[in-house]
Amino acid sequence: MTLAHTPPILTPTQLLAHWQGHRRLTRRLIEAFSEDQLYSYAVGGMRPFGALGWEMCAVTGYILTCLVSDTWPHPTWGEQPPHQTALLSAWDDLTARMDAELPTVPPARYSEVKPLFWGAQPAINAALYAIDNEIHHRGQGYVYLRSLGQSGPGLEVPPFWER
Amino acid sequence: MTLAHTPPILTPTQLLAHWQGHRRLTRRLIEAFSEDQLYSYAVGGMRPFGALGWEMCAVTGYILTCLVSDTWPHPTWGEQPPHQTALLSAWDDLTARMDAELPTVPPARYSEVKPLFWGAQPAINAALYAIDNEIHHRGQGYVYLRSLGQSGPGLEVPPFWER
Repeated sequence: MTLAHTPPILTPTQLLAHWQGHRRLTRRLIEAFSEDQLYSYAVGGMRPFGALGWEMCAVTGYILTCLVSDTWPHPTWGEQPPHQTALLSAWDDLTARMDAELPTVPPARYSEVKPLFWGAQPAINAALYAIDNEIHHRGQGYVYLRSLGQSGPGLEVPPFWER
Repeated sequence: MTLAHTPPILTPTQLLAHWQGHRRLTRRLIEAFSEDQLYSYAVGGMRPFGALGWEMCAVTGYILTCLVSDTWPHPTWGEQPPHQTALLSAWDDLTARMDAELPTVPPARYSEVKPLFWGAQPAINAALYAIDNEIHHRGQGYVYLRSLGQSGPGLEVPPFWER
């Protein structure tokens, strides 16, 4: 059975829905922090969730651009939004871009080997990396919220399975 | 373009490699804890990493069985291994099972809607859930290690991108 005749086990539509589902959950986590906690609180000397959230946004935006344009330059991450409102606004802009632009990626492109920034791999791995990196750091944000006691306004921890 | 003619953006072989790559990284994280830390240390009132690691193993084993047998009973998770060696042994048994059994899943099955334990969805979502849940909890294990100071024997934090 050649690659071209293997039934798809993930479609572009499913990828977009899965990705945006994760991003909706992460957005709720960003909102669950107070402004001050988002930029000053962390555990174990790690980065605050505002920095992690911006990394997710920057990585996803970069990989979306790579997938859509089929150019794979070395990434630059841009400047971190200075407050929660700006981060959420950047988040929402990217959500709209993904809905508009990801469906324009030719499905065959995902299996083509591209010079991803950590090595030559099929383009699908870039999308999976963006999602995995977001889940990884979001899981860390859950620990921050738990260690803040998840009490008081804005500190309810969103359930992982609700997207 | 019908579903059957959409080029696959993820093949069964890529799914297995991606899944096992994540599991190799998680195994290194389990090893990075001392026996005592694995079962007694946590942050914010959460479960120790030994419990999270067992959850990952149980969820993945359950979903593998569902995918292979095409039966989707309500899950039961079994008893948590009582020490690190037993957890790693269960982990390795599952690694071998996955290599042997996942390739036997007919590719078309992944797009069929199945009664997953949280609702009726395409079977691919079960595999993605197992992976996502593992990344989520593993990210939390990273925070535990960081907050332990990542110094001393066994406390080096494995890099996220090395699989």
